[in-house]
Amino acid sequence: MPHVTAFARNQWYVAAYRHEVGREPLGRTLLGEPLVLYRDAEDGSPVALHDRCVHRRYPLSQGVLDGNRIVCGYHGFAYDRTGTCVYVPGQKRVPRTARVASYPVLEQDSLVWVWIGDPALADPRTIPRARHLDAPGWVTVRGMEPVDADYGLLVDNLLDLSHETYLHGGYIGTPEVAETPITTEVDEDAGLVRVSRHMDDAECPSFYSRSTGLTGRITRRQHIEYHAPCLYLLHSRIAPVGAEPEPDGSDPHGFRTEITYAITPSTDGAVYDFWAVSRNWATNDPEVTEFLRTSNHTVVMQDVDALNLLQRTLGSERTGYQELSIGIDTGGLAARRILARLVEEGDKPAEQVR
Amino acid sequence: MPHVTAFARNQWYVAAYRHEVGREPLGRTLLGEPLVLYRDAEDGSPVALHDRCVHRRYPLSQGVLDGNRIVCGYHGFAYDRTGTCVYVPGQKRVPRTARVASYPVLEQDSLVWVWIGDPALADPRTIPRARHLDAPGWVTVRGMEPVDADYGLLVDNLLDLSHETYLHGGYIGTPEVAETPITTEVDEDAGLVRVSRHMDDAECPSFYSRSTGLTGRITRRQHIEYHAPCLYLLHSRIAPVGAEPEPDGSDPHGFRTEITYAITPSTDGAVYDFWAVSRNWATNDPEVTEFLRTSNHTVVMQDVDALNLLQRTLGSERTGYQELSIGIDTGGLAARRILARLVEEGDKPAEQVR
Amino acid sequence: MPHVTAFARNQWYVAAYRHEVGREPLGRTLLGEPLVLYRDAEDGSPVALHDRCVHRRYPLSQGVLDGNRIVCGYHGFAYDRTGTCVYVPGQKRVPRTARVASYPVLEQDSLVWVWIGDPALADPRTIPRARHLDAPGWVTVRGMEPVDADYGLLVDNLLDLSHETYLHGGYIGTPEVAETPITTEVDEDAGLVRVSRHMDDAECPSFYSRSTGLTGRITRRQHIEYHAPCLYLLHSRIAPVGAEPEPDGSDPHGFRTEITYAITPSTDGAVYDFWAVSRNWATNDPEVTEFLRTSNHTVVMQDVDALNLLQRTLGSERTGYQELSIGIDTGGLAARRILARLVEEGDKPAEQVR
Repeated sequence: MPHVTAFARNQWYVAAYRHEVGREPLGRTLLGEPLVLYRDAEDGSPVALHDRCVHRRYPLSQGVLDGNRIVCGYHGFAYDRTGTCVYVPGQKRVPRTARVASYPVLEQDSLVWVWIGDPALADPRTIPRARHLDAPGWVTVRGMEPVDADYGLLVDNLLDLSHETYLHGGYIGTPEVAETPITTEVDEDAGLVRVSRHMDDAECPSFYSRSTGLTGRITRRQHIEYHAPCLYLLHSRIAPVGAEPEPDGSDPHGFRTEITYAITPSTDGAVYDFWAVSRNWATNDPEVTEFLRTSNHTVVMQDVDALNLLQRTLGSERTGYQELSIGIDTGGLAARRILARLVEEGDKPAEQVR
Repeated sequence: MPHVTAFARNQWYVAAYRHEVGREPLGRTLLGEPLVLYRDAEDGSPVALHDRCVHRRYPLSQGVLDGNRIVCGYHGFAYDRTGTCVYVPGQKRVPRTARVASYPVLEQDSLVWVWIGDPALADPRTIPRARHLDAPGWVTVRGMEPVDADYGLLVDNLLDLSHETYLHGGYIGTPEVAETPITTEVDEDAGLVRVSRHMDDAECPSFYSRSTGLTGRITRRQHIEYHAPCLYLLHSRIAPVGAEPEPDGSDPHGFRTEITYAITPSTDGAVYDFWAVSRNWATNDPEVTEFLRTSNHTVVMQDVDALNLLQRTLGSERTGYQELSIGIDTGGLAARRILARLVEEGDKPAEQVR
Repeated sequence: MPHVTAFARNQWYVAAYRHEVGREPLGRTLLGEPLVLYRDAEDGSPVALHDRCVHRRYPLSQGVLDGNRIVCGYHGFAYDRTGTCVYVPGQKRVPRTARVASYPVLEQDSLVWVWIGDPALADPRTIPRARHLDAPGWVTVRGMEPVDADYGLLVDNLLDLSHETYLHGGYIGTPEVAETPITTEVDEDAGLVRVSRHMDDAECPSFYSRSTGLTGRITRRQHIEYHAPCLYLLHSRIAPVGAEPEPDGSDPHGFRTEITYAITPSTDGAVYDFWAVSRNWATNDPEVTEFLRTSNHTVVMQDVDALNLLQRTLGSERTGYQELSIGIDTGGLAARRILARLVEEGDKPAEQVR
């Protein structure tokens, strides 16, 4: 039995990075729903359709674009951007019911967000922001890893950074991360969890020492902001011990890094792990960019390997099992509660929601 | 849940090509029944036995032939061509009940046909012919691909050639195939479906232009004859536009090609795809032979990849799904009806059938 | 449906060779129970703990040893050798219930035995001996292969050596093995099966001719001693035809070889196949050692391939199936009976057992 967290419908999810969506159809499965993504030939806006031809259910993402039509690669059924079938082979008449679902889709902060649920409920204003991903003065390295694990395990992982000390020792972890207590704030209504950890006098992990040039001990702050269900922001600041921001807000000795994750459930036991590291320092230094890209990819893959293993491990449990939670899990447990509520709300019939 | 079409028992199926059956045991699974095939040491006729030793169910196809005995590779139980066990290790007495099933088997037109069902009902006269596979004046290229897909999907595929335009574009497909309406004839009692498509003025696909040397536009005819459940014949004729056969039946300007498929269900969601291309022109040209072999193999693999994908796709559907059929599907739908009837008849107790 | 023999609990099983257990955590799954094995930092004795951290069930075998603590590789929970958690991250207080199961473990004859079941019932005196594995004057080659097959199939395999003639022909099998009748003795209470085969005038298989230098025909004796459920001993003696041991017990012309197997069920349909070949002749000849190692590994892999195939074969049976047993199966059937009894006894509540 695979370990599975239920999916929260009637929510926005990141389906792709902006640069991934173009004139080649891209197939992605969100919350068990197969999507094909592409960019409109005329206005360049992203399109998201159900990825199954009405004829024999061949994936449209295997097809080709012909102007503003997407053409099935099996028998040539063609659809416009609303999902209406506009051509079938061998006859002039296109059946009236030939139509695939189209999904609300929006590009923001270099991310392509898709609404999974009742389209009438989609409100673009509720999409959380990650401006640093697409703002002047910021440089970002990014990637996406498909993980063969329940998305809940990735939420657990990211909400409890004490694992940096053990799983990512030598990269971003140092003893102080696990040792330093956290403070957790939860806004249940907003679906927001904040976890903060202030290390006043800590070892500088190689991830930061090699990129910033800081050699001595540092003050290090981690502020997590998890906007359930999909967007995770980690606001990081390091500086030499004792160097605080100026009263006017400027921070000449500090290095601020924004780590972004989008956690998008794919199928049961599979999740897309979108990750990005943004900085507004050393922005012209390609070596720093390359180091952060390689280094963070390594860290992400350590998580991917661990989560894949954990998923297999939980799936092989023969009987019910227990967990034992402690202080570090406060944020993760809050996230689980919020997700459970979002799942429940997302499963309500539409008339109760509107 | 894998997408599965039920199997039609009490039918002849192609288990192998003649050249595949020799003095090395060959294991094949037909309709879920494991068979071992080999050739008799004395008269060279093919033998088909149940591929499980009575002792511990080790596959006999892993064993060796010793004269007219097939010897299990695990503990040496040996069987004659009737399936009777004639030797066991460590003792003289062979248990009377030690016997594996033998299957009616017949070689015809270079194909090895096996009857799956009640042996008493097997009538060799009902095996459909494909004389071109083994007739003087014809040259054939052939192969077999195991497909991880329901055999019903392969039947669908072959009965609707409009997919040539899309899946096999650049090989055997041109726009005219999808555009030209078909005519379909069904003989329900005979279990026969005929689908015809006449293209009077069509582009010549590279499959034919490079093999025949025709450079201009052509008249192209496709006549499908599907003898359910196993044998599919595609009679193809191309010629320069306007060049029809002579009143006496001769056809100096036409190129006739016989495309043969045997569609043999293996296990649930797996099918053997036997394919052959036969011609009675350029029979002495090895380059044409090699081109047709390579080219048709490519086309077959395009189908294999598509069907494997479709099988996985249908298997991942979370709820019931719908198809939408149009004119091009007339033949395929007729084939499904006939198969459903054959399945029903094949499941009847024998006394009702005889 | 995988072919599965139930597991017999409240028994000792070989979890590893002595040399496999050290200061790197070793993960093994016995009877479906995940274990982590390592060696104590102080007294060097082996430790066996449940291989799941209490926190989020990450395998402890992925962690590291820190002195006498095993530290989880995910969030750093640390355990002492009794399984008591002695450290958690971010807080001083360790929850009282934080504890993983520890298993009775004992090293004997170079094998690491673990008791699976109620620890209170573990009696080290019931562990069967295999002194030749660790005795002066004996040289042993050994290995372990994980097999994707039910452990019952490996028991079947080893109790009936007539398969040597067919599956291992050219290595250790000759026609005489299958031809020679066996004698079987069963001590149901002791859980012991003995199978003997005396070949008075037999071909010398290459396994023995190349290692001993014997060139002519031999007298060959195989005495199996199966101590259910785990330990299998095969006492082998070969000598030139007619050369018997002296009245005083000395055996100047004979070559005695001890073949040991430990059959340790892992998960359903998976078994650890520990194998060893021990000799007290040519003990200083490294070529003989290397030949026996390579040669026996080949033989073991022939079994592994056959058992993996048999497991897949039995798992694909669509309906109930039958076996047909003959004289050679007497020992194997006795072993199955004993195992069934041990399973039943092992499943009894502890109070009925003590």
